[in-house]
Amino acid sequence: MDDAVYWYAVATVLLFVKMLATGLYQGYHRITKMTFKTPEDARMAGKEPASEELPQVQQASKAWSNDLENIPIFLALGVAYVLVGASPAFAGWLFMAFTAARYAHTLAYLAKLQPWRTIAYGVGLLCMIAMSVLIVMALG
Amino acid sequence: MDDAVYWYAVATVLLFVKMLATGLYQGYHRITKMTFKTPEDARMAGKEPASEELPQVQQASKAWSNDLENIPIFLALGVAYVLVGASPAFAGWLFMAFTAARYAHTLAYLAKLQPWRTIAYGVGLLCMIAMSVLIVMALG
Amino acid sequence: MDDAVYWYAVATVLLFVKMLATGLYQGYHRITKMTFKTPEDARMAGKEPASEELPQVQQASKAWSNDLENIPIFLALGVAYVLVGASPAFAGWLFMAFTAARYAHTLAYLAKLQPWRTIAYGVGLLCMIAMSVLIVMALG
Repeated sequence: MDDAVYWYAVATVLLFVKMLATGLYQGYHRITKMTFKTPEDARMAGKEPASEELPQVQQASKAWSNDLENIPIFLALGVAYVLVGASPAFAGWLFMAFTAARYAHTLAYLAKLQPWRTIAYGVGLLCMIAMSVLIVMALG
Repeated sequence: MDDAVYWYAVATVLLFVKMLATGLYQGYHRITKMTFKTPEDARMAGKEPASEELPQVQQASKAWSNDLENIPIFLALGVAYVLVGASPAFAGWLFMAFTAARYAHTLAYLAKLQPWRTIAYGVGLLCMIAMSVLIVMALG
Repeated sequence: MDDAVYWYAVATVLLFVKMLATGLYQGYHRITKMTFKTPEDARMAGKEPASEELPQVQQASKAWSNDLENIPIFLALGVAYVLVGASPAFAGWLFMAFTAARYAHTLAYLAKLQPWRTIAYGVGLLCMIAMSVLIVMALG
């Protein structure tokens, strides 16, 4: 199996696990505190709808929004990287650095740790810029 | 053509159709009720901007947000599944079960049907967990 | 290299650059106006948190939300297009027309130019519909 394909698959599974964990974190807080904003969910739990989401749920949503602005385009760049046959030697480093940066980003968001959140965001962007450069070089 | 590729393509087209339908549903309600929150859209229709989106548009937006948290990562897992050559025999079942679950999820959101919405969400997650396991087995 | 792969890679890199530019546009306004809604960000800048995001940041967020509803599914259709071997002759035109339409869409959103924003949105949708038809034809 091509090295870039191997690391693409590893990154995809790890990023899915991270998104799953974020969803479970939100569900855990909603269920243990019995706090639901969506009326049909509150009704199912026999509660009045909450006027707003819990702080932990809101913070996780912000982390998730940032994920959605970064992870799908990373995954698409990863596919392009594989399909054009860009440097297999760099694939593992770049894909794993991006993945680690996004784990760090979510943790920093939940813990409200600045400037670490911004640094993690920047590392992820740098990985995507490097991937873009390697893709364009492979096209040339 | 590889079986996994075939079902990946079918799932992608069907999920695009679903997203298109959700967008048309929102547009239909905005236009038939002449209610636009974005000022430049209201101006184009010769109306004052609405203070908030219509209930149907809001409910569809919530369905769509959940889609965005699930469908792109599914599609990336699907590509990884194809590229690492994971079980072609399971590809059709898993990709179609996920797609059906997301159709059911959107319909349950629009109709405010609980616990069906949560069940549909869970079925989608289980498909992605199974895909992740098969991907990791193919890497091993 | 396959023509469809080539244009897929070009489109992916260009769409990444667009998303990067939108993020930088938001960061530029937040930093030059020292206005941060997230409390831990405001604290890092030695400011009180703002009660809401700047108008430019809000408008860019709306453009970005629409991107997230369109670009990931386009990228997945692009991968399906490549993998099923749909018409290489149309790939360049469709992928580049979609990319140009999304650049136009973001610019029209930021400049509040209607009906141009809606037209750009529609052109992007038409490209994805054409891609879906060509994918299904290749499956047949």
